[in-house]
Amino acid sequence: MQPMTPIVYVPEDSDFSIHNLPYGVFQTSSLDKRLGVAIGDYVLDLREAANQGFLSSLSSEYFQGSDFNPIMELDRKAWKALRSDIQDVVYGKTSESIKSHQSLLSKLFIPKHQVSMHLPAKIGDYTDFYSSKEHATNVGTMFRGADNALNPNWVHLPVGYHGRSSSIIISGQDIRRPCGQLKGNQEQAPHYGPTQALDFELEMAFFVGKGNALFESIPAKAARDYIFGMVLMNDWSARDIQRWEYVPLGPFGAKNFATSISPWIVPLEALEPFRVPAPIQEPKVLEYLERASDASTFDIHLTVSIQSNSMRKPQLICESNFRYLYWTMEQQLAHHTVTGCNLRPGDLLASGTISGKSENSFGSMLELSWGGSKPLRLEETQEQRVYLQDGDQIEIHGYCQKENIRVGFGSCHGKILPASPLT
Amino acid sequence: MQPMTPIVYVPEDSDFSIHNLPYGVFQTSSLDKRLGVAIGDYVLDLREAANQGFLSSLSSEYFQGSDFNPIMELDRKAWKALRSDIQDVVYGKTSESIKSHQSLLSKLFIPKHQVSMHLPAKIGDYTDFYSSKEHATNVGTMFRGADNALNPNWVHLPVGYHGRSSSIIISGQDIRRPCGQLKGNQEQAPHYGPTQALDFELEMAFFVGKGNALFESIPAKAARDYIFGMVLMNDWSARDIQRWEYVPLGPFGAKNFATSISPWIVPLEALEPFRVPAPIQEPKVLEYLERASDASTFDIHLTVSIQSNSMRKPQLICESNFRYLYWTMEQQLAHHTVTGCNLRPGDLLASGTISGKSENSFGSMLELSWGGSKPLRLEETQEQRVYLQDGDQIEIHGYCQKENIRVGFGSCHGKILPASPLT
Ligand SMILES: [Ca+2]
Ligand SMILES: [Ca+2]
Ligand SMILES: [Mg+2]
Ligand SMILES: [Mg+2]
Ligand code: NI
Repeated sequence: MQPMTPIVYVPEDSDFSIHNLPYGVFQTSSLDKRLGVAIGDYVLDLREAANQGFLSSLSSEYFQGSDFNPIMELDRKAWKALRSDIQDVVYGKTSESIKSHQSLLSKLFIPKHQVSMHLPAKIGDYTDFYSSKEHATNVGTMFRGADNALNPNWVHLPVGYHGRSSSIIISGQDIRRPCGQLKGNQEQAPHYGPTQALDFELEMAFFVGKGNALFESIPAKAARDYIFGMVLMNDWSARDIQRWEYVPLGPFGAKNFATSISPWIVPLEALEPFRVPAPIQEPKVLEYLERASDASTFDIHLTVSIQSNSMRKPQLICESNFRYLYWTMEQQLAHHTVTGCNLRPGDLLASGTISGKSENSFGSMLELSWGGSKPLRLEETQEQRVYLQDGDQIEIHGYCQKENIRVGFGSCHGKILPASPLT
Repeated sequence: MQPMTPIVYVPEDSDFSIHNLPYGVFQTSSLDKRLGVAIGDYVLDLREAANQGFLSSLSSEYFQGSDFNPIMELDRKAWKALRSDIQDVVYGKTSESIKSHQSLLSKLFIPKHQVSMHLPAKIGDYTDFYSSKEHATNVGTMFRGADNALNPNWVHLPVGYHGRSSSIIISGQDIRRPCGQLKGNQEQAPHYGPTQALDFELEMAFFVGKGNALFESIPAKAARDYIFGMVLMNDWSARDIQRWEYVPLGPFGAKNFATSISPWIVPLEALEPFRVPAPIQEPKVLEYLERASDASTFDIHLTVSIQSNSMRKPQLICESNFRYLYWTMEQQLAHHTVTGCNLRPGDLLASGTISGKSENSFGSMLELSWGGSKPLRLEETQEQRVYLQDGDQIEIHGYCQKENIRVGFGSCHGKILPASPLT
């Protein structure tokens, strides 16, 4: 028996293999905003597929809108059935006529270079966690000294804070350097100006599928059913603004000016082959945070590269992995709802910066340059970097690979534009 | 010349006088969710008024929906014109026929006891500030000691944090006592259980009208145009959860389980007669936060009452005033956007707990009972209160009064239901 091949060409090293089938919202010069699935170098138009009667597990109404919220609101069984319908379309099993009719084929599958991408969901609320022990320890050491690096609560609960949903943007949009209040340690009073410590944060985030009612809690062991899929995230941060503002209520303007996400939501089901054991947690967590006895997370390789205005090619500056995180997504979701907070379909919960143990796995400039004491060297141009300069581009990639099965997240990238201060 | 009288009866002490005309979303057993205006003991059905052609300043499409976001998105000029149309309807100036046709009159004006209220807007993002110097000093003293009460940044910027928009609920909805992680000072590790320190926070909040684009900032002097109107707010808080979780990223589960607002948005224009000078600010603020030379705020009387299950009548426990706040709404809005964060129509920005100097003006149980050291005495039943008990009802009122002109906010109230812990 031959392995099945998809009806469009998929390069062997594509992030968007037949095993992936991630969801995104796209438009073209002739098609308005709509739902799609990435496959190789094409985007499958789900509205067209539904209107042709190829997605029979769901009413075609689900595909007339321009965001995934109504589909997220369903459950794992419905997501699985939809995915199966989509696999059938991609393998040409839905209808013999697809393969032989070039005009239908080209209506269904649109070359990726023709599409522009949009946010895949209406994001009601966005929450950012702080779930890498290495990152929390690094930042804590630099902000509060080694003795107070990891706060006592950190090992007992997934620390998080509410972020700003209005400024979540799609990969590729440029980032304006923010202005705000800055105060040097030697200064008496703060001054106004562009941040001198603009940073990236390598993160991943998951979209909430079905939500929970207000005053209802979801224990970690039941949380998987509420997770729709994952994206890459860059939580742009202004460290000098953050340092001055964050006590006692947490980061605010330092992080609310832009948060970039990759456009394609990789469904949880596509990540299943890449489950690996989750880190051991000591001390033991409270019952609502308890994981299954075979607690697992995902093996997702993550990289960050930088390219200055003068560079012709990006330079890799970080290699990390989603599996390094101490707290799992299920635990984040359980902790978020333990007080009865309601999550809604399309809400976004982010991991926090993903740093590993080795210095080349640190997920921010703050850590890579160790607070400025070890500037990063850009080999091609011999420039140095402590924080990001105007014109710098940061690009995050993420992928899972197991033998010849590859499931990737594509890219989350953005370029720094000069500040435009108030005059 | 006689003063004009409205065509429906308005009691002299009504919060909803002809000078107010606040906006809310209501429904009845026969009418679906729609926009309305409170006048005396009636609600003017704006959809009906528009369909009759009485609101000619705006296309009638603005009144077919079930939230005010499209109207908020307009500007002050449009809001003024709409308000003027509504005044004409209420005075019977729009059409002679209103007065003489009882059937039209009763279609337009619905007795308040027949309506149930809903959130007036889709709230994209909710932000809570911390703008009362007295409150920040009180809480800081109790959490960190008198020496570190007010952080150095507090007098330089309106400290705030992003809150949770999904759990904003309308006055009258009951509040389930939240469970979470609690850790006594003498305990080695946290335990799970219902909060033992459930509190209210007396606040007010404003709805953003027109928004700003991402990477665009609004200085305080230009900010007034972006404010649509105000409501009362109770930011329910679990102090024991807060104390354990809040370092270093701020309050999270302690405040994301419920935030109540009053249903009627009082337009900024209705508050104009009650402008009073804003507090003097020393040290001088940075330019983007500078107020007009005649910096002003509003004189809004605020009260909080409690009623336990055993009490027949509520007892007043706090008298405060919106004018006590150190930072103005315009400054909050300017600081929120200084980094380029985009605000959207319908976003909600809250004041933070509004405490005054005197002990009876403190806006939370934490302050009124001074962290438990001075329990509050409920006179009618001789009960004592440090924090809220199951069955307790908290009611906030707010009003402006100047000679015989009264503009009130109605009530923001909620009752505590027992916890339902995970089993
Ligand atoms: Ca972050
Ligand atoms: Ca508050
Ligand atoms: Mg961000
Ligand atoms: Mg709240
Ligand atoms: Ni939000």
